[in-house]
Amino acid sequence: MAIVVVGSLGLDTIETPAGRVEEVLGGSAAYFAFAARHFLPVSLVAVVGHDFPQAAQTMLNHPDLDLAGVARVEGKTFRWEGVYTQDMNSRKTLRTELNVFEQFRPELSERLRGLRNVFLANIDPVLQRQVLEQLERPRLVLADTMNFWIQNKREELLRTLRQVRMLLINEEEARELTGEPLTHRAARAIMELGPETVVIKQGEHGAFLQSADTYFACPAFPVDSLVDPTGAGDSFAGGFFGALARMGRLTDLNLRRAVVYGSVMASFTVEGFGVTGLLRVEREEILRRAEAIMTMTRFSLDDTSRLLR
Amino acid sequence: MAIVVVGSLGLDTIETPAGRVEEVLGGSAAYFAFAARHFLPVSLVAVVGHDFPQAAQTMLNHPDLDLAGVARVEGKTFRWEGVYTQDMNSRKTLRTELNVFEQFRPELSERLRGLRNVFLANIDPVLQRQVLEQLERPRLVLADTMNFWIQNKREELLRTLRQVRMLLINEEEARELTGEPLTHRAARAIMELGPETVVIKQGEHGAFLQSADTYFACPAFPVDSLVDPTGAGDSFAGGFFGALARMGRLTDLNLRRAVVYGSVMASFTVEGFGVTGLLRVEREEILRRAEAIMTMTRFSLDDTSRLLR
Repeated sequence: MAIVVVGSLGLDTIETPAGRVEEVLGGSAAYFAFAARHFLPVSLVAVVGHDFPQAAQTMLNHPDLDLAGVARVEGKTFRWEGVYTQDMNSRKTLRTELNVFEQFRPELSERLRGLRNVFLANIDPVLQRQVLEQLERPRLVLADTMNFWIQNKREELLRTLRQVRMLLINEEEARELTGEPLTHRAARAIMELGPETVVIKQGEHGAFLQSADTYFACPAFPVDSLVDPTGAGDSFAGGFFGALARMGRLTDLNLRRAVVYGSVMASFTVEGFGVTGLLRVEREEILRRAEAIMTMTRFSLDDTSRLLR
Repeated sequence: MAIVVVGSLGLDTIETPAGRVEEVLGGSAAYFAFAARHFLPVSLVAVVGHDFPQAAQTMLNHPDLDLAGVARVEGKTFRWEGVYTQDMNSRKTLRTELNVFEQFRPELSERLRGLRNVFLANIDPVLQRQVLEQLERPRLVLADTMNFWIQNKREELLRTLRQVRMLLINEEEARELTGEPLTHRAARAIMELGPETVVIKQGEHGAFLQSADTYFACPAFPVDSLVDPTGAGDSFAGGFFGALARMGRLTDLNLRRAVVYGSVMASFTVEGFGVTGLLRVEREEILRRAEAIMTMTRFSLDDTSRLLR
């Protein structure tokens, strides 16, 4: 049992009120893999250029990560540069250099085609579909997307959505995709486009999950220090999908637990620049934060009907 | 046992994507009272002008509401006009006519001075303090505030905060007051200014409560239709404070339950223009929504330590 992630690897230059880092390991596949590996081994399908630095390569060389699907090709590695506002609630992209990522055409090896748990990070919906066509008997497929595809490849995205069982999407993007201002109504509208389960990421407000039987709201874990929000969504995906694939059955309770682990993994990421917050995670701290989320949401209503006049 | 609210009564003209209403009953005291009356009788301290319409007066004439503290004076009633954006996440004030509210100097009768549960709506912090000075032995005092006072009467607000046990505040206002971008850190910073308990309203994302022993996050109830967000915060205050005053003891569990009832009462308000959503609330529906919030937040983590590698 393992997980495949198809996404980006890149070099990020990030400025937040907490500081600045240059050309550090980033990309959706990196954040996802470092979060999901706590639950199951992860195979990465991605591309880097000949200039991919040794320091980044060393970070990826981890016994839980299978890098056979990471192609190293002639050309420069994908680069992104962004700067966050003072409250870190929004960011401005200063530079996106697709470089070798522009020609990325994911080709899965025979071994990877047989894997059953697949995360399609927010790449071009056409590529997402090409990956789906290569899979032999996928059991659990989670797709992510982003505003660029909603605006520029809407029809292709809708075709992909008809083929995926689960969608992960930001709150604003869910509204943009559906035209529904109420988030839970947007989730229901997305379910009519194909996915049986929709997970909406709400940043510092947590996440919620909607499926036929489940409506679950989960807060974000309250971190002591917010250093860099980059990759929080992909880390959420890693915690959510890793836990869900490991638990196996898609019961109401397992879906809820998976959202909690998504929130927990995202909380580690924002505490450090790039992937550094995720890299120092310890097993006990994952459990402690999951329990903290339970404590901060629990209540009972016994006898409170006597409250009303 | 009863509650006193000191706040505004006015006539609102409201435009949202769902429609428009003109000169309907509004004001913090009205929303608060219609929400809190489900838990305890409410005495209003407010002022209206000689032009306060019979229709609005008839709405207020309810056996649970004590209007002896509502002064009717020469001059025009407070008026507010606003228009909401398409997603209703923000609004623009087109007109604020303070009228008789400008000269509002709350004077509590001897009977009201003896009441022990007091909600100070978001009036001038100097007036809030004048009310506090009139109280004989207050048990539970909840204050609200707003960006106008944070920006223009900061020192007066800080003086008032040193005297109130609980503060209710919007998320953005909490950040503005403290300079802390993380909401839960803003809440802790407010606790250093005086209040033992801080409740932060997060609109469609719910609310959370921070006190010495409790950190509780509660989602908003997912309404089917969002008609008019005006008064949601004051209705939250009514549900929260009404339930808390009725339950009596400030235990961790009672504080959590009170936040849930705040969320429930706010959800009714946004379903109709002005106070109409609140007016049609039935007892059974209050309980049903509180139970729905429990269902949508509940999970367990039994055995999930086996999840991790």
